[in-house]
Amino acid sequence: MDLTTIKDPSFLKKLNNEELEVLAYSIREFLIEKLSVNGGHLGANLGVVELTLALHKNFNSPEDKLIFDVGHQSYIHKILTGRAGQFDTLRQYKGLSGFLKMYESKHDVWEAGHSSTSLSAAMGMAIARDLKKEANYIVPLIGDGALTGGMALEALNNIGHEQKNMIVILNDNEMSIANNVGALHNALGRMRSTGKYNKVKDDLEWIVKKIPKVGGKLADALERIKDSMKYSMIPGMLFEEFGFTYYGPVDGHDFTALQKNIQYAKKTEGPVIVHVITKKGKGYYPAESDNKDKWHGVGPYKIESGKKISPTNTPPEWSSVVSGTLEYIAQENKKLAVITPAMIIGSKLENFKEKFPDRLFDVGIAEQHATTLAAGMASQGMKPFLTIYSTFLQRAYDQILHDVCRQNLNVAFGIDRSGLVGADGDTHHGVFDINFLRSLPNIVIMMPRDENECQHLVYTAIKYDNGPIAIRYPRGNVLGISMDDDLHQIEIGTWEVLKDGTDGVILTFGTTIGMALEASDVLRQEGLSIRVINARFIKPVDEEMLHNIFKAKLPIVTVEESVLNGGFGSSILEFAEIHNYSTKSVTRMGIPDVFIEHGKVELLLEQIGLTKKAVIKEIKKLLPTKKQ
Amino acid sequence: MDLTTIKDPSFLKKLNNEELEVLAYSIREFLIEKLSVNGGHLGANLGVVELTLALHKNFNSPEDKLIFDVGHQSYIHKILTGRAGQFDTLRQYKGLSGFLKMYESKHDVWEAGHSSTSLSAAMGMAIARDLKKEANYIVPLIGDGALTGGMALEALNNIGHEQKNMIVILNDNEMSIANNVGALHNALGRMRSTGKYNKVKDDLEWIVKKIPKVGGKLADALERIKDSMKYSMIPGMLFEEFGFTYYGPVDGHDFTALQKNIQYAKKTEGPVIVHVITKKGKGYYPAESDNKDKWHGVGPYKIESGKKISPTNTPPEWSSVVSGTLEYIAQENKKLAVITPAMIIGSKLENFKEKFPDRLFDVGIAEQHATTLAAGMASQGMKPFLTIYSTFLQRAYDQILHDVCRQNLNVAFGIDRSGLVGADGDTHHGVFDINFLRSLPNIVIMMPRDENECQHLVYTAIKYDNGPIAIRYPRGNVLGISMDDDLHQIEIGTWEVLKDGTDGVILTFGTTIGMALEASDVLRQEGLSIRVINARFIKPVDEEMLHNIFKAKLPIVTVEESVLNGGFGSSILEFAEIHNYSTKSVTRMGIPDVFIEHGKVELLLEQIGLTKKAVIKEIKKLLPTKKQ
Repeated sequence: MDLTTIKDPSFLKKLNNEELEVLAYSIREFLIEKLSVNGGHLGANLGVVELTLALHKNFNSPEDKLIFDVGHQSYIHKILTGRAGQFDTLRQYKGLSGFLKMYESKHDVWEAGHSSTSLSAAMGMAIARDLKKEANYIVPLIGDGALTGGMALEALNNIGHEQKNMIVILNDNEMSIANNVGALHNALGRMRSTGKYNKVKDDLEWIVKKIPKVGGKLADALERIKDSMKYSMIPGMLFEEFGFTYYGPVDGHDFTALQKNIQYAKKTEGPVIVHVITKKGKGYYPAESDNKDKWHGVGPYKIESGKKISPTNTPPEWSSVVSGTLEYIAQENKKLAVITPAMIIGSKLENFKEKFPDRLFDVGIAEQHATTLAAGMASQGMKPFLTIYSTFLQRAYDQILHDVCRQNLNVAFGIDRSGLVGADGDTHHGVFDINFLRSLPNIVIMMPRDENECQHLVYTAIKYDNGPIAIRYPRGNVLGISMDDDLHQIEIGTWEVLKDGTDGVILTFGTTIGMALEASDVLRQEGLSIRVINARFIKPVDEEMLHNIFKAKLPIVTVEESVLNGGFGSSILEFAEIHNYSTKSVTRMGIPDVFIEHGKVELLLEQIGLTKKAVIKEIKKLLPTKKQ
Repeated sequence: MDLTTIKDPSFLKKLNNEELEVLAYSIREFLIEKLSVNGGHLGANLGVVELTLALHKNFNSPEDKLIFDVGHQSYIHKILTGRAGQFDTLRQYKGLSGFLKMYESKHDVWEAGHSSTSLSAAMGMAIARDLKKEANYIVPLIGDGALTGGMALEALNNIGHEQKNMIVILNDNEMSIANNVGALHNALGRMRSTGKYNKVKDDLEWIVKKIPKVGGKLADALERIKDSMKYSMIPGMLFEEFGFTYYGPVDGHDFTALQKNIQYAKKTEGPVIVHVITKKGKGYYPAESDNKDKWHGVGPYKIESGKKISPTNTPPEWSSVVSGTLEYIAQENKKLAVITPAMIIGSKLENFKEKFPDRLFDVGIAEQHATTLAAGMASQGMKPFLTIYSTFLQRAYDQILHDVCRQNLNVAFGIDRSGLVGADGDTHHGVFDINFLRSLPNIVIMMPRDENECQHLVYTAIKYDNGPIAIRYPRGNVLGISMDDDLHQIEIGTWEVLKDGTDGVILTFGTTIGMALEASDVLRQEGLSIRVINARFIKPVDEEMLHNIFKAKLPIVTVEESVLNGGFGSSILEFAEIHNYSTKSVTRMGIPDVFIEHGKVELLLEQIGLTKKAVIKEIKKLLPTKKQ
């Protein structure tokens, strides 16, 4: 079947299971081929082919609301809603998003890139439906990993109480992004493995009938047991405790089983959970046999071998430099422990885990808990280092403020994927952390210019014992420079002059230092001497250096791959205001007050206007008119 | 017993139950008397007198870690750790805090004002203990309400999985701040009421013995039932599913039962939950018989009658004006629905709930869920208004960003208790919301100068259909001015000149407008003409007005009862930078980069330097040297 001819999912109604099997095969072939070129979330999507087909066959989208938690497992949904023809542009600039987008299709009724939002959204939609006296189905699809996120549990609690009609599809593939952890995971495991308990209820009924009514104590006992049955001895007991009707476990690759249970669910009043067991990577051997989740999000690969096609001789990723440094320090420093919210693979912590299994804590998708856990450890003299993606750190804002900064505890944050992240787009760019952290008392915020400085700043973070400290580092690969053998501390609040200059100053940090140096080189050829400063401490700023610059009345351009409102550049304006300097010769460059789409970082920077050329232009603007 | 002679809790070891009863009586008398003068969290503390005594008798603080969730139920702990003599200063400026404070006592090992942090902190402490090879007990005390907070559930999941030794005391008083809601609450109710199920296990054993072994199907069935018993039919099944050993329910006012279960717990490996049933307000009739939680946090009262002593003829609270306006609008506007995270009483929503029970959603302590629930409703054409205290809005930062602002949904936020809140102190001041909201695209932020403008801004928020919008309002009472009969919209991004002037400008909003007007009056008597502007839109700013001010080169003082770093004043600096105006004549006044303690707001403002006198001084500083 030519998938690009599909306009909407209505054709599914007419297909029988055999035809669905054929379609599922075509879809898998299509995905394996398309993603081999540009990459994408292959594993998760291969796992939900039958499930997505069954949902679209048994519900009427968009009247019925299919809500995909996170949304990177929505490729089949995209195919079924007329977007197969755009897969060559998947995750490319101005191309098909890797997540759901309302602007792409009326069938995308909810957008997400962060996990665990679907149940709350579903509850909101259910309330709206009931107030509007409509009767559509609300069908959130949530993974077992996302279920451990606090907000999903808050939602379960609320939904179970309010008893709104809703069909939650629990997509249980036994891993979130990496192997799942946590008690809920164990409970799901029991549900999966204890099919035999499904029989227990029947057994009891049978016994009750078999044993003659004897009255007295036996009858009483049987009565009590029967009474208690509704709370017990079924695999979904945990969900029944939360007020849900439970169906499952269901084989997520068996159309008959899927459709039977969906039909049961449609006829059930109140909230329902259909527990579907799927296999990530199903139908593509390299992905299916991957138990380390290396196929969660992939780059290009060779279809036959599954071999990843990656540029040769690339330097290591920033995450690796950080985790490698942590390993090195952990040998000597017994107080150091590392915490990750379900990102052992992403944050490159496999080696650390192997070397120091008792000092690596993977808490699952639980950023709030991870942060306050770190605070608790720090309160007892440990030095926790919490590695967390910038975008997910947003989940822990209150815990950083209330538990870590307010109590001024020695927690170190490794803010991974800071700045623009590229193909994942607006839900994943790490461009708000400076703004939300900078207004919190007690915290130090740093960003290294290269991997060598990175290792020293990690060391600085571990040695620092005066409160919370954060080191930001970007997604992707380091520069490939040589590394010092010994680690040393870098004095808090000190910047570094990378290139001297007397006509103007570029203040910048991290990823934008390269373009600043290049801009300075170009300008030097034009006879302009521009100082480039590595503002590696975003907070506190280097006051001495700033006083010197402002006293010399040098024009300043601040450059940050971060949101402008309340950002680093604003802290320079604040410094000027506090010390009564003029800001007429200050220009801030950064990310404007809009959400930034997906695409290669270079293209996004161009779109935003964060380029060498633009830096040159802004400096030149300041020079003739403002320089005195 | 003279409680002020207590130095530490070691004396409890020697007391028998009878002596403990006498002590409990003395403590209740003491609390009822002390709190009648200055107020405090009476209900919660009266409920945990026996429990706190039992904990301090059976554990060794501070080696054993007693971690009070939230901490406002720690008054007995404070008495037992040598602070009875300071109760006359409770919640007063420079006096005893109403919460735990590490600086007050070595027995205060964790501080909190926000709920649900104790389990994560406890897990952190347990990890630290085990890595340090120590052997102390870790004992978090958490209420049934706090248990529904997402991070507490994240922690349960992690603790149950890791199986660290820890004794969780679940203080179940059947209400959080108000009546508890949610499926977990229902589950706890079943545990409380189904003591009879405790017998079921015994029953089954008895039946197994009674029925002769017949082999075949019956034997198989019985075997399966017995197998399944470990997961079933006990009150704490839910917690057992999470990997905890459950003891309870225990009468929280019965020393024998309490101590027996604590001793069981101490001997149990892995995490334990002791489910303790307490009665809020126990021992003081007016509080004990209060089923609306009016005695949660109280002001002064007459001991004999329980009558609250409140200033007569005070105007209504800000929360009441907002909820009243919402009621009025809801009559016409069927799309309006109100969401509250466990704050029906605090946010004065009782009347709204009575009039529109199907449009008032109390989701319990679950700020993340509340926010994304609102987003889900808005995605389906409803207009949700989420009332939430500023300090608790911090918990929903990512949901505001990722679900509401990014999808640009029509959610209105009523940010209650914005600004300094007084006696509750550093954990409760609402002074960060401007900073963390202002850098988010799409959101409008407003604050009214008085109750009349407040009702119009609430109306504006409801009518606004271009994305998220927030209205901040302070704790306490409104000004007592007259209200317009009809509601009207106020144009987004427009400020208001309250007093004209040609020598300088004060830009301010909300609570600080009064001091600005007074400062202007004083200066006018000195011949200085100072314009006072009501900057009721914090974002977007009134660009036209700002251009006029900067073009006229008028000195500007910005005044905000909010954190300076990245705050409103910074947005004025940013405006100047963008439009190439000088900021030499701008001075920002607000809250410096430290956490602010507890005490009357007036005293705190004085400490910070946010006073009429200071405003006058800052303007004068700008005038002679900066004005041109």
